[in-house]
Amino acid sequence: MAASEFSLIDRHFAARRRARADVALGIGDDGALLLPHAGQQLVVTLDALVAGVHFFAAADPEGLGHKALAVNLSDLAAMGATPAWATLALVLPEADEVWLERFCRGLFALADRHDVQLVGGDTTRGPTTVIALQAHGFVPPGLALRRDGAQPGDGIYVTGTPGDAGLALATAFGKARIASGHEGVVQARLERPEPRIAPGLSLRGLASAAIDISDGLAQDLGHILRRSGVGAVVDVERLPLSPALLASLDRDEAATMALAGGDDYELCFTVPLERIARLERAAAAWDCRCTRIGAITAEPGLRLVRADGSEFRLERLGYDHFR
Amino acid sequence: MAASEFSLIDRHFAARRRARADVALGIGDDGALLLPHAGQQLVVTLDALVAGVHFFAAADPEGLGHKALAVNLSDLAAMGATPAWATLALVLPEADEVWLERFCRGLFALADRHDVQLVGGDTTRGPTTVIALQAHGFVPPGLALRRDGAQPGDGIYVTGTPGDAGLALATAFGKARIASGHEGVVQARLERPEPRIAPGLSLRGLASAAIDISDGLAQDLGHILRRSGVGAVVDVERLPLSPALLASLDRDEAATMALAGGDDYELCFTVPLERIARLERAAAAWDCRCTRIGAITAEPGLRLVRADGSEFRLERLGYDHFR
Repeated sequence: MAASEFSLIDRHFAARRRARADVALGIGDDGALLLPHAGQQLVVTLDALVAGVHFFAAADPEGLGHKALAVNLSDLAAMGATPAWATLALVLPEADEVWLERFCRGLFALADRHDVQLVGGDTTRGPTTVIALQAHGFVPPGLALRRDGAQPGDGIYVTGTPGDAGLALATAFGKARIASGHEGVVQARLERPEPRIAPGLSLRGLASAAIDISDGLAQDLGHILRRSGVGAVVDVERLPLSPALLASLDRDEAATMALAGGDDYELCFTVPLERIARLERAAAAWDCRCTRIGAITAEPGLRLVRADGSEFRLERLGYDHFR
Repeated sequence: MAASEFSLIDRHFAARRRARADVALGIGDDGALLLPHAGQQLVVTLDALVAGVHFFAAADPEGLGHKALAVNLSDLAAMGATPAWATLALVLPEADEVWLERFCRGLFALADRHDVQLVGGDTTRGPTTVIALQAHGFVPPGLALRRDGAQPGDGIYVTGTPGDAGLALATAFGKARIASGHEGVVQARLERPEPRIAPGLSLRGLASAAIDISDGLAQDLGHILRRSGVGAVVDVERLPLSPALLASLDRDEAATMALAGGDDYELCFTVPLERIARLERAAAAWDCRCTRIGAITAEPGLRLVRADGSEFRLERLGYDHFR
């Protein structure tokens, strides 16, 4: 390979640098030198994507660049944080200039939309592509959305239409088929998830708990329940199912996909009853749906029910490594 | 595999948490919630280690845990930063409990010595072990050690005895042989580098530029020269060579190893003449050597000379990915 580690970093990453006022020194020294926001808490989150595990080795690099940042911005959204900086550890089998150019195009298009600056990176050779991205954001003290604040009686909400990404994934594995005419929108939901930054910010002081949905709504809501020491009842007939999902699967399969499909990067959150009017006013300004799907209970565990009160049995589809 | 991603993280990482006062929320939510130090700049640095590229797949996991953190703390040292937090993206072929236990032992032993708290992580399955660690530290405004401040006339210094780690690596590849009786100390210099945190802190306000040596003294000094727009003369007979290195190689080979071997994680830095007395007083308290090896020149480029002024020709051994 002609390109050295250093020229790779310089050409593709350092050259694309933004000039945020809170970055004293970006890529190019032993470390980045950053100016935390006075009086704010720093939120950091990282997610690693591995070829053959989280994405197909032949996946569109532009989509991967987008998704590597999106899944981390989604975590910031779930904390109610304003995004600021990202760092990237990139392991590549070869210094493929075309791949890198397209990867950067996807990464920086999303970064620019959310005013995120890439401030550090490490690019190394390795047998498999690994993309480990860390995002950094800020939130005022006491306003971070955590998993452990849900209380009995709180309403449970979800943004967007979970299940679409799961349908795309199931289709890729030959276990489902996207209805004709819906392929593009469903595929985009898997490859180009839109981090719910604006909803996350407007949930500060409103939501009692929040999480982003990566492993499936049921499993991720379960994290809120365990951390908060509560349970929940979810009405599966209230789940916001997309036209694409309903056209592709029967209603129970669609609900199962929405509950257990994973890779949605929607927010699931809880809101105390007395703040629901405020929430509904806030959500009217969002560019995604916001749907109440159930309520927090004192009794532990997650109960899935139909409108008639009968139990909905979930076939578990949620994604878990090392299983 | 029996252990799920979540129980892996919980059992090995979250359970070992320290309780730093500047961590509001560590592992277990969508992100960590951290309290930056008022009036200080945040330094972040990340390095990824890949099996088969940066370490042998069969390497001692305890040493790997140490080294993954050490190489990043070394970058903080080279910035003059006080370490605070770390995050870890870990890709493993299998959830090997014994490996993880030993990896954590090495990682947390070093973390505890430097009061570093692991605040976030992502553990996923993948075909090859990848360890991407990010370290976070703090430095007062204006006191960070950068690469771009060296001025003609500044003295050039190095900590410790570079070349030992390179000798261990060359031995592993069958290209050298550690002299009998020195194997343990040389091997430890490769596997358990000691980040020069205390020297880095005491260089605040003293050094005009600094870098840590990962790719070889000559190559890394070259980064200071390019970023500062200067050159240097290094007297190869002043290089601090360890007894082990001198016992294992002839003198020119030993100097070459010290200049180009890499993996040292020593500091190379420059100091203006008027601060040299202060430096020497500060360095007397360090637990490693501090040796003046040359001077910064206005003329660009790195000149290696012997005591008689003749040129020393360097066979390049420095390590670079994608070469």
